[in-house]
Amino acid sequence: MTHLLTNIGQLVTNDPERDGLLGLVEDAAVVLEDGRIAWVGAAADAPAADSRTDAGGTAILPGYVDSHTHLVFGGDRAAEFEARMEGRPYSAGGIRSTVSATRDATDAGLRARLAGFVAELQSQGTTTMETKSGYGLSVADEQRLVRLAAEVTPEVTFLGAHVVPAEFADRADEYVDLVTGPMLDACAPFARWIDVFCETGAFTVDQSRRVLEAGAARGLGIRVHANQLGAGDGVRLAVAIGAASVDHCTYLSDDDVAVLAASDTVCTLLPGVEFSTRQPYPDARRLIDAGVTVALASDCNPGSSFTSSMAFCIAVAVRDMGMTPAEAVWAATAGGAAALRRADVGRIVPGARADLLQLRAPLIVHLAYRPGVPLVNRVWKDGALIAV
Amino acid sequence: MTHLLTNIGQLVTNDPERDGLLGLVEDAAVVLEDGRIAWVGAAADAPAADSRTDAGGTAILPGYVDSHTHLVFGGDRAAEFEARMEGRPYSAGGIRSTVSATRDATDAGLRARLAGFVAELQSQGTTTMETKSGYGLSVADEQRLVRLAAEVTPEVTFLGAHVVPAEFADRADEYVDLVTGPMLDACAPFARWIDVFCETGAFTVDQSRRVLEAGAARGLGIRVHANQLGAGDGVRLAVAIGAASVDHCTYLSDDDVAVLAASDTVCTLLPGVEFSTRQPYPDARRLIDAGVTVALASDCNPGSSFTSSMAFCIAVAVRDMGMTPAEAVWAATAGGAAALRRADVGRIVPGARADLLQLRAPLIVHLAYRPGVPLVNRVWKDGALIAV
Repeated sequence: MTHLLTNIGQLVTNDPERDGLLGLVEDAAVVLEDGRIAWVGAAADAPAADSRTDAGGTAILPGYVDSHTHLVFGGDRAAEFEARMEGRPYSAGGIRSTVSATRDATDAGLRARLAGFVAELQSQGTTTMETKSGYGLSVADEQRLVRLAAEVTPEVTFLGAHVVPAEFADRADEYVDLVTGPMLDACAPFARWIDVFCETGAFTVDQSRRVLEAGAARGLGIRVHANQLGAGDGVRLAVAIGAASVDHCTYLSDDDVAVLAASDTVCTLLPGVEFSTRQPYPDARRLIDAGVTVALASDCNPGSSFTSSMAFCIAVAVRDMGMTPAEAVWAATAGGAAALRRADVGRIVPGARADLLQLRAPLIVHLAYRPGVPLVNRVWKDGALIAV
Repeated sequence: MTHLLTNIGQLVTNDPERDGLLGLVEDAAVVLEDGRIAWVGAAADAPAADSRTDAGGTAILPGYVDSHTHLVFGGDRAAEFEARMEGRPYSAGGIRSTVSATRDATDAGLRARLAGFVAELQSQGTTTMETKSGYGLSVADEQRLVRLAAEVTPEVTFLGAHVVPAEFADRADEYVDLVTGPMLDACAPFARWIDVFCETGAFTVDQSRRVLEAGAARGLGIRVHANQLGAGDGVRLAVAIGAASVDHCTYLSDDDVAVLAASDTVCTLLPGVEFSTRQPYPDARRLIDAGVTVALASDCNPGSSFTSSMAFCIAVAVRDMGMTPAEAVWAATAGGAAALRRADVGRIVPGARADLLQLRAPLIVHLAYRPGVPLVNRVWKDGALIAV
């Protein structure tokens, strides 16, 4: 069965064989077949199909690829957020307070919460999402998180090395032994990726290298949180070890930027974090001008960025990180796909998955021009309409 | 017929007789009857009703009162926005380009567009909206805009003095003669308010006073755009002449703040403008600490702020204007009502209109904690469910 989407005012293909960064086609049509893109071109040239959707002149883009989220957790940190915004001290333990709430939650509770987030992300146009463990921090709890995550996405990241749990205070190396040993054994079967938070206060470069090498030895791909809160060697470690993505990257030396530009490691920026913590925004313009591949992701998590809206991330990236609207849309779709080393998503080209987002707007620039406005019209995943 | 909303996790009443700025009630219930609030209190004490909605522990607040929008216009300014964000020069005429597109539009075209915006605002929780003329700038065109606006809201503002139209270049005083004479005659029957853009490049203080006094003589209430782009006497004029609201207010002297604090003129801040123009944010903290009544509104318009999301305005006001989440929610509900001198909206108290917004969240702080995420669950206006 074929389905024709036609009368598309502006189509973002991200096809490098077409003109411009976004490979835009105006007055476009797309044919979906068996969950894949079968044909892309001018509406006037479209082949016959079994059924059709008239897009009414609106814009269509690939579904968002949100390559960095933390969606399996218990509790929230609304009171911590409110205190931070009001400049009041707040003594609760940051990530560790979510670890405590997560350990206390039942499987059923975590699964229901996760299902709610998946629906929330999809209804906003995200059709591929990565999600991480990292709020368990024991063998059984981390395994539970990757197991639950694997029920909803293939892009599961084992982040046992998120922070050192309270019970290993002052014994970080022993915790790394646990992460790289029994915890990795328990989690690797459910994960595609390994990740580490390489930052002062979390894990050192040497500890991070141990974690990532152990994951790689088990066949996991590599992701790194680094250079979020200050300068350091995390970005260079990520590139040296062949990470698919290094995420945050606010504090970069010229050497960091050069190393990234010469690599195939994607730099994933997370505007929701800086919005919700009032930290300085990373300089996307500097990265793009240097030739670095940049992705945008939500970092949806209860502490530092509880947005799940990729449109919001695009709007903030345009306003505050020096990205053009086209660059931000690319980064939220093709950029996210690159960060996950996926060729089958983030593009509307023949053979790619039929994951598409139709806007309630004629142009994709409206995602930045109309911040906060829900502009989702329809969402298709694997050719099926999942949100209207 | 009575309808009971019960199992409300957090209810914002804005009732000054209850504790705190928001008059919060936990584990609350509300009874609606004949389009009005009939009863408010603890769920355990709620009276019987003919039907009921279980809020499932979510938060309910008064529907937003968006006291500053420009929703009757033709065209858009997406290309101008994109050029501004990319730092490229753009020669088109700002407001005047929208005037041209608006004059060229048909009544049917403007009406359909306006209906779309009304639906968009309501679906995001706005239950009372002001809207302005100001893209006609001729007697016939301004009358057309206030007439169309009056079809959708009683809060219609005549803003013939938005800018001096091109055909009156260098004859601003003659244009003011037109605004205060034939244009006011044509528009006053459809309007509740008169407004003027008192700013260098728009209208002087003397011209603004003429406009406002002429409107007041016709029984119109007074609103002013002032101190957006630089310091000036607009705020003091607004207070002296008894304006219900003075809007923008980025550049204020200590005297301006003191004059506002001693008045019953509301200061309406419009975070979408600064977000979308990268201009400095106004300092809400300074105003509130001085005792000024602050409202938040969207300024939804195609040039400087094309958001219609009051939730987005709340999130930005909290991050960048020094408001607490509670202050921002108050400003977007009771503050907007004060700016429109309406006692029947913006509060959930017996006798008020049954205009309510139920969130997909347990606490109203989530409006700032989860920026960009559509958190609207249900919206009631005059007791009728208008969005789910």
